[in-house]
Amino acid sequence: MIPTLEWLPEGINFLDQTKLPLEETYVLATDYKQVANVIRDMIVRGAPAIGVSAAMGVAIGIDRSAATNLQDLTAEVASISKTLAETRPTAVNLFWGIDEICTLYNQLAASNTPIPEIKAAVVAKSRRMYDEDIAACKQMGAHGASLLPKQGTVLTHCNAGALATCGYGTALGVIRAAIEAGHTIDVFADETRPFLQGARLTAWELLKDNIPTTVLCDNMSAHLMKQGRIQAVIVGADRIAANGDTANKIGTYAVSILAKEHGIPFYVAAPWSTIDIATAHGDLIPIEQRAAREVTHSNGKQMTPDGAAIENPAFDVTPAKYITAIITERGVLYPSFAESIQRMDAATPELATA
Amino acid sequence: MIPTLEWLPEGINFLDQTKLPLEETYVLATDYKQVANVIRDMIVRGAPAIGVSAAMGVAIGIDRSAATNLQDLTAEVASISKTLAETRPTAVNLFWGIDEICTLYNQLAASNTPIPEIKAAVVAKSRRMYDEDIAACKQMGAHGASLLPKQGTVLTHCNAGALATCGYGTALGVIRAAIEAGHTIDVFADETRPFLQGARLTAWELLKDNIPTTVLCDNMSAHLMKQGRIQAVIVGADRIAANGDTANKIGTYAVSILAKEHGIPFYVAAPWSTIDIATAHGDLIPIEQRAAREVTHSNGKQMTPDGAAIENPAFDVTPAKYITAIITERGVLYPSFAESIQRMDAATPELATA
Repeated sequence: MIPTLEWLPEGINFLDQTKLPLEETYVLATDYKQVANVIRDMIVRGAPAIGVSAAMGVAIGIDRSAATNLQDLTAEVASISKTLAETRPTAVNLFWGIDEICTLYNQLAASNTPIPEIKAAVVAKSRRMYDEDIAACKQMGAHGASLLPKQGTVLTHCNAGALATCGYGTALGVIRAAIEAGHTIDVFADETRPFLQGARLTAWELLKDNIPTTVLCDNMSAHLMKQGRIQAVIVGADRIAANGDTANKIGTYAVSILAKEHGIPFYVAAPWSTIDIATAHGDLIPIEQRAAREVTHSNGKQMTPDGAAIENPAFDVTPAKYITAIITERGVLYPSFAESIQRMDAATPELATA
Repeated sequence: MIPTLEWLPEGINFLDQTKLPLEETYVLATDYKQVANVIRDMIVRGAPAIGVSAAMGVAIGIDRSAATNLQDLTAEVASISKTLAETRPTAVNLFWGIDEICTLYNQLAASNTPIPEIKAAVVAKSRRMYDEDIAACKQMGAHGASLLPKQGTVLTHCNAGALATCGYGTALGVIRAAIEAGHTIDVFADETRPFLQGARLTAWELLKDNIPTTVLCDNMSAHLMKQGRIQAVIVGADRIAANGDTANKIGTYAVSILAKEHGIPFYVAAPWSTIDIATAHGDLIPIEQRAAREVTHSNGKQMTPDGAAIENPAFDVTPAKYITAIITERGVLYPSFAESIQRMDAATPELATA
């Protein structure tokens, strides 16, 4: 299993995803501020991994606090949560991860639980969320595998793999499960500018599992679709609105249109924690704008002329109408998503953190 | 005027487009083999510029030949043409440029013209083609300017500008002409992986003309289209089949689908020499595959893991049904292109090389 992040006695150890694929190095975060930096700088990225990282960030903040009374600690928890919440705006899992720990903290604080017990409880909870994330990915794989072709090539965009989760992956987890179930699947990985999550991360982790992977530039998939060389598309998600509109890595929306135009199914795989019932539709999802330098510079060299303006939205929203199905650990959702999400949310609330 | 290429007494001087935008350096080709290398290595690129470069390549080959009789010279011309024809397969202008000089050579040789006169004639012809290319771009601008919005943002892909021609540009020429006619136009330039013609070349030449230009990654335009921030798309072409199917830089096909999905007009601007009447439809256009290293490496650093397969088609074909109009120096073509191309070809053959 690829060690995306790991709770160690000395802190939280993150595989530095900015250095892959050529260097496998780790960044150890020993306090919550370092966790916030790790999330902001995309040393860890991917909505599910961000969610668990944020939860662990709050937990390590509480665990390492010098507060001697609950009043001081509660004030610190608010500050810790704020710092972590301000790292990245789009992935709802970030806020979910923070909320999960804060909710537990508030319950324990309300009943005057001794601080050492609170510390142990929040750390244990964040570590349980890590295990649950892997279990959810495996469940997505079990539910989604049969949707993928028995034999064929699947396109994915960005990295929704082991590196975007605590292990196994969402979209790539479904691919792994299909292969484990006997499907013969090759993967086309969009390189995914500007951060190259596809070229650097998806290719790296799939090749580690001996899954044949071809990297292409983001502008090439339409050409391959027209040639009949892509049988399905599967991507992850950073936030799914109540109507099924899905925020994911910039470029996903374009891929969904191209898939529709070529009659190719387009699947989203994400844990239930990515579904944001409180957001009615995709236009309400905040889209992170990242620094121009990610676009202008490549390995330290400036590629654009001085004076050029830059667009660098990190995400876009794929309207529900372009999505064939959404694969979650609770099961597969089909259109109309507004209804199927509501139905599954009502039917299985006990699984929300299971 | 940006000096894309220039016939000098000592040879043909090419602005090295692999070094832009940070370095403005030149490569002097003093024989036809060097011209072939300059085309193959994309020191010069863009279908119209390739066409004139190839013509000048044949002319310099003839001009610098040591042959003392027509039989030897004719054999050399065949070899020169073959070398130049094998540089790049997709842009039909390459073959057109070679043919123009060979046709003139064959006429002069057939009438036993003295070798010094032949040399002078083919050099003069290739230099006339340079002037005619600029004139054609200006004509495209005159015909196409009114198609662009009075005020708005135009998306372009790759570089179909002064750098892709002998000056002024095809798609960017139409933008320049619209601005000269009083339109207020901002440009979105797709960066155009893997060679970054948009980020490096389009932004560079438009900013030199003080045209506001924003660079975006190729996967971002759909997001901007959905936000209503793109009013028209205009691109160049490397080969247009008899039915209007258009080969252009990889990614153009995707942009055409995205434009259609958002109700945005999609224009192609190209000189008549780009229209290949002999090719019935786009599936018959050969698509150049370029080296994997263009995708795997960035400024010398490997970005993909060892073992990843690579796709690197340099072009794709946009079916005629996605094209709103084709702007040529003879006028604007509208669907059905099979008919409008045939009609204009029959009506104005005398302009073919005018």
